[in-house]
Amino acid sequence: MAQKPSIPRGTRDFSPAEMLRRNHIFDIIRRNFSLWGYLPIETPAMETLSTLLGKYGEEGDRLIFRILNSGNFLSGISPETLSSADTSAVSQHISEKGLRYDLTVPFARFVVQHRDEITFPFRRYQIQPVWRADKPQKGRYREFFQCDVDIIGSNSLLNEAELIQIIDHIFSELNINVTVKVNNRKILAGIAGMAGAGEQLTDITVSIDKLEKIGREGVRQELMQRGIAPEAIDRLEPVLGLSGSSEEKLHELRSIMASSETGLKGITEMEELLGYLDLDQLNPTVELDLSLARGLNYYTGTIIEVKAADVPFGSICGGGRYDDLTGIFGLPGVSGVGVSFGADRIYDVMLQLDLFPEQTGSSTQVLIVNFGREELPSLIKIAGTLREAGIATELYPEPVKLKKQFAYADAQKIQLVVIAGSNELTAGQATVKNMKTGEQTAVSLSALPSFIKKE
Amino acid sequence: MAQKPSIPRGTRDFSPAEMLRRNHIFDIIRRNFSLWGYLPIETPAMETLSTLLGKYGEEGDRLIFRILNSGNFLSGISPETLSSADTSAVSQHISEKGLRYDLTVPFARFVVQHRDEITFPFRRYQIQPVWRADKPQKGRYREFFQCDVDIIGSNSLLNEAELIQIIDHIFSELNINVTVKVNNRKILAGIAGMAGAGEQLTDITVSIDKLEKIGREGVRQELMQRGIAPEAIDRLEPVLGLSGSSEEKLHELRSIMASSETGLKGITEMEELLGYLDLDQLNPTVELDLSLARGLNYYTGTIIEVKAADVPFGSICGGGRYDDLTGIFGLPGVSGVGVSFGADRIYDVMLQLDLFPEQTGSSTQVLIVNFGREELPSLIKIAGTLREAGIATELYPEPVKLKKQFAYADAQKIQLVVIAGSNELTAGQATVKNMKTGEQTAVSLSALPSFIKKE
Repeated sequence: MAQKPSIPRGTRDFSPAEMLRRNHIFDIIRRNFSLWGYLPIETPAMETLSTLLGKYGEEGDRLIFRILNSGNFLSGISPETLSSADTSAVSQHISEKGLRYDLTVPFARFVVQHRDEITFPFRRYQIQPVWRADKPQKGRYREFFQCDVDIIGSNSLLNEAELIQIIDHIFSELNINVTVKVNNRKILAGIAGMAGAGEQLTDITVSIDKLEKIGREGVRQELMQRGIAPEAIDRLEPVLGLSGSSEEKLHELRSIMASSETGLKGITEMEELLGYLDLDQLNPTVELDLSLARGLNYYTGTIIEVKAADVPFGSICGGGRYDDLTGIFGLPGVSGVGVSFGADRIYDVMLQLDLFPEQTGSSTQVLIVNFGREELPSLIKIAGTLREAGIATELYPEPVKLKKQFAYADAQKIQLVVIAGSNELTAGQATVKNMKTGEQTAVSLSALPSFIKKE
Repeated sequence: MAQKPSIPRGTRDFSPAEMLRRNHIFDIIRRNFSLWGYLPIETPAMETLSTLLGKYGEEGDRLIFRILNSGNFLSGISPETLSSADTSAVSQHISEKGLRYDLTVPFARFVVQHRDEITFPFRRYQIQPVWRADKPQKGRYREFFQCDVDIIGSNSLLNEAELIQIIDHIFSELNINVTVKVNNRKILAGIAGMAGAGEQLTDITVSIDKLEKIGREGVRQELMQRGIAPEAIDRLEPVLGLSGSSEEKLHELRSIMASSETGLKGITEMEELLGYLDLDQLNPTVELDLSLARGLNYYTGTIIEVKAADVPFGSICGGGRYDDLTGIFGLPGVSGVGVSFGADRIYDVMLQLDLFPEQTGSSTQVLIVNFGREELPSLIKIAGTLREAGIATELYPEPVKLKKQFAYADAQKIQLVVIAGSNELTAGQATVKNMKTGEQTAVSLSALPSFIKKE
């Protein structure tokens, strides 16, 4: 057992310094969710497999971590099934639960299960880890945090506009320059229909979603490989090549797909959304991106994706409108819209761009030097007074050499050290040392809390 | 799939109202941990089974939720092992990870794994869920939250005293009356030795730990059943019957076990601890309880347990000193002490005693009535101004009937509704309705944020 212990691949420990930075992100996200009237919920880490399976495609099903049934989990399997060594058949018998794969399906399950207790429209946010048995690699973890914000039970495009306001405020506060790309699934359907390939909507959107990555020629080849007719591709190309402002693109589009009712509906929705946003002064660039598709089978209206402008990373936030999320659990026809902030990606971007505010590295503000038994009663009282004033304070637990106590304050990046030996105490004073500047100030004990608060 | 979905037995969803109450508890706990200089860490939900197994006894091993290996998990098993249907043999081959069972073992693993990055003494807190495949019953869940606070790398009893200060402050702020019981494992060893049954320390402490539950006669019988000699029991009884203040008990004990070096050491430690506490004005009753044992094999010095005074519940917080927690992972001789707050038990106690502060049931303070397209631009601006002032504000997403919007505010327990139709807007005013009192006030738009903050 003397072997150095480790954690499972793709998972992480978070040290205090990392936690402080992560909480900086979570606090800003949470505060903005609340400011827009969203309320927190939490769901269990484990869901029944019947809730999880079949919701994320075949690949998704494979990536779900399954929990072995407790007790004698082999008792329900026939010897034949067992000796067949058929992974999927055996798995069904020995596992009934899995770890949540995202927060969207648990949310849909929550809404249906608690429909009688919920007042609609229901605004909820949820910040919890999810687990995927994906191949770990740089920036991809097997345990990572999602921050989801959704409103369900309202068709109004005001919701989309407010979500974009939230995105704007969160990334402004985090100091990340972003571009918000928007599209609408109905416009995509209109484009595909206009090209005479409405049946091949999925193939088309999967291909054009790669426009930024592989360029126009690449998309053309992919479309051909996917069996889209050359005439259809010829009709698609000018649409993807539309330039100008979002308004100009929409204006062009309106004439290009005048015959597609769905497409026109999408354009109207997009115009309404952009109209709401105009009312507000938004920092980020919001732009219509006709190649944006994101998990199309799922979204039915607006699609939103946020990219950090200063790094070649993928998206750090995204979402859209879904008209029938809860239908899979037996509650059809409830429209919702939401976005998910990828906390771990945001963390990586901020680290790379050095965007974290300079922190002390510790949330502890003061270390009181321990001089030993004689002074201890007074030192305990000083510590109590500082804490009473809301100042995070440590009293070094042992009366070891001063040098060691200072080295500790230094390593822990504690900003102030309070030195109060018997002489100082007799004089009703303490010396406060600022560890950053080296400056030492004599302060009367009664003025200590206010002095420290000012520092 | 139309069957109403559900969650695994023993797990829970938390609604917004429950989350607000839970966060009330977590916030108070977290703030006090920070005030005493403790820093947050987090560890992954999944640990390798080699980290988890063998740390919680045989019963504990059985209660660990195991994760099925991904992919073709049956490939590594020989047909013989498989057809043997030997649960434990098969389990070893198909599962390498488990969900954490508590926060103590992951913490020990963390300290050893990151020993080179940590400055000792290391003060950490950790608030995360843990999972146990226990039989679910009232108050016992399969997923529940622990709030652990530990300092490792310091022998000073000042740490114990500060933990009791933290306990005092947390439960005072939560308004829960508690009794803090303390004991010392060395005193227990001294008692067992004095009775001439030092070898049977575990049997003795397991029995006397039940004193409160089964009474003195019950303990006597249990001791006999466990094979403790009647003479030993005769010598134990007067010790358990000691009465008076903690100081008086310790005084008596000192003469009773004058011959036990370990016992005397325990008494000295206890006196030092109580001495530190005397320096502070503590609210809760701190009392020496010689029958307190709590997971004895684990603790080596001080033992702490907190009981809610006004409910017949078990403990809501407990812990103690361990001299060799990290030894199991190859880092021996590092002493630590810590306590764990049971958030779910605390929640249940507070609910039962009606101790939660009266909250609005929602963190959203204001609902702005949606009058439709014409007023919307102004209403969006009002919402923005309120949020800018830190007021959690909802703009109802659809211009439905006023009655419905008010019913929503009522159901959501939103305190204030802002009514600003075209007439009000033209006059630069809004009407604020207090949903609790029914009172309506006309307020100029510019004064709205400050008026609402006052309400």
